[in-house]
Amino acid sequence: MALKLYGYWRSTASYRVRIALNLKQLEYEYVPIHLVNQGGEQHQQHYLQLNPAALVPTLADDDEDIILNQSLSIIEYLDERYDQGTRLLPCHTLEKARVRALAQDIACDIQPLGNLRVMQALETQFGVAKPEQLKWAAHWIHKGFSALEQRLATQSGNYCFDFAVSLADVCLVPQAYNAKRFGINLETYPQIHKVVSNCEQLEAFVAARPENQPDAPPGS
Amino acid sequence: MALKLYGYWRSTASYRVRIALNLKQLEYEYVPIHLVNQGGEQHQQHYLQLNPAALVPTLADDDEDIILNQSLSIIEYLDERYDQGTRLLPCHTLEKARVRALAQDIACDIQPLGNLRVMQALETQFGVAKPEQLKWAAHWIHKGFSALEQRLATQSGNYCFDFAVSLADVCLVPQAYNAKRFGINLETYPQIHKVVSNCEQLEAFVAARPENQPDAPPGS
Repeated sequence: MALKLYGYWRSTASYRVRIALNLKQLEYEYVPIHLVNQGGEQHQQHYLQLNPAALVPTLADDDEDIILNQSLSIIEYLDERYDQGTRLLPCHTLEKARVRALAQDIACDIQPLGNLRVMQALETQFGVAKPEQLKWAAHWIHKGFSALEQRLATQSGNYCFDFAVSLADVCLVPQAYNAKRFGINLETYPQIHKVVSNCEQLEAFVAARPENQPDAPPGS
Repeated sequence: MALKLYGYWRSTASYRVRIALNLKQLEYEYVPIHLVNQGGEQHQQHYLQLNPAALVPTLADDDEDIILNQSLSIIEYLDERYDQGTRLLPCHTLEKARVRALAQDIACDIQPLGNLRVMQALETQFGVAKPEQLKWAAHWIHKGFSALEQRLATQSGNYCFDFAVSLADVCLVPQAYNAKRFGINLETYPQIHKVVSNCEQLEAFVAARPENQPDAPPGS
């Protein structure tokens, strides 16, 4: 197969795909794309040919015959194509819809509002300084987590949806990592805190952590 | 079945689900949730019980036994559960991944950055005035459409993916409607313009248009 993941250690969308690859027990080559150095390697021609949106992650499969973008789509692709490891979506239509909705609560309503390019645009377009940028990101995480906490109260077991790890957990753990960076105390969200703590016991999640990637700066 | 859609005429996420319901030839009751009047009906207790994120749309199925949020998840649910009408996702794993990625290019990377609550937050948090808010939204649409245009150049036929209407078109048409509101000339994106023009020939897309909804103000 020869899978290759173009990502960045601290990108939460890349982090999702790393967790999924680990849960699926798929080996892959990791190709770091530094989002800050040299004005951002994602804007360089060789990367734009893979992903014209200049965003990470990008997945290559079949020795680069297949190039895919969008983390959620990549993860469902891996889950459908490869039988091995953890199944990341339930089989039943309604359960699948609930797992996808939890994942999209994070991937559509929280993550896009606090990522690097948005922070940079707040600064260049409106002169918003760093501390205010962080408050902006924290605002959307609080909003999203408050709603998610209520959904998990009726849907979670050990994990976001019932008692099996799923796509929803694969999205929640990176978002929780991000929340901590922005000074949010996860214990104010007991359901989220419970699920994240349970996931962090699993080797697939530990190996995917930003600080365990080859492109993480020493001591991060 | 008795399907009920809680939405808002001008919400592009609601618009997506309306198109999908029409393409699936599913009858439904439309329940308008006014996002502006009275401080926004989405914040009222009766709606928060259905959707604690205070966002539209919400779909109820089986006479309200099933309550679902997140437009993309709702649409895949409808497609999996109901055989009738247009099939909105291809069967093949790789093709499905490409259609989902195009949909998420819009639903994760464009739409979340220019919606009403973000505009309101720019104003309350940073005092950003209306004309600058519109420029902010247009900035992200241009960024997203530029990348999408390149993807469509290799993937589109009459529609976003090849020659069959799919989830990707269901997302693109509402985003194009939104782009026009923000003063973007679609003809600068020939691939997008072609696909949108083709979709707008179809009755399912026409019936779903914002101005054709019961909650649209007269003359809109």
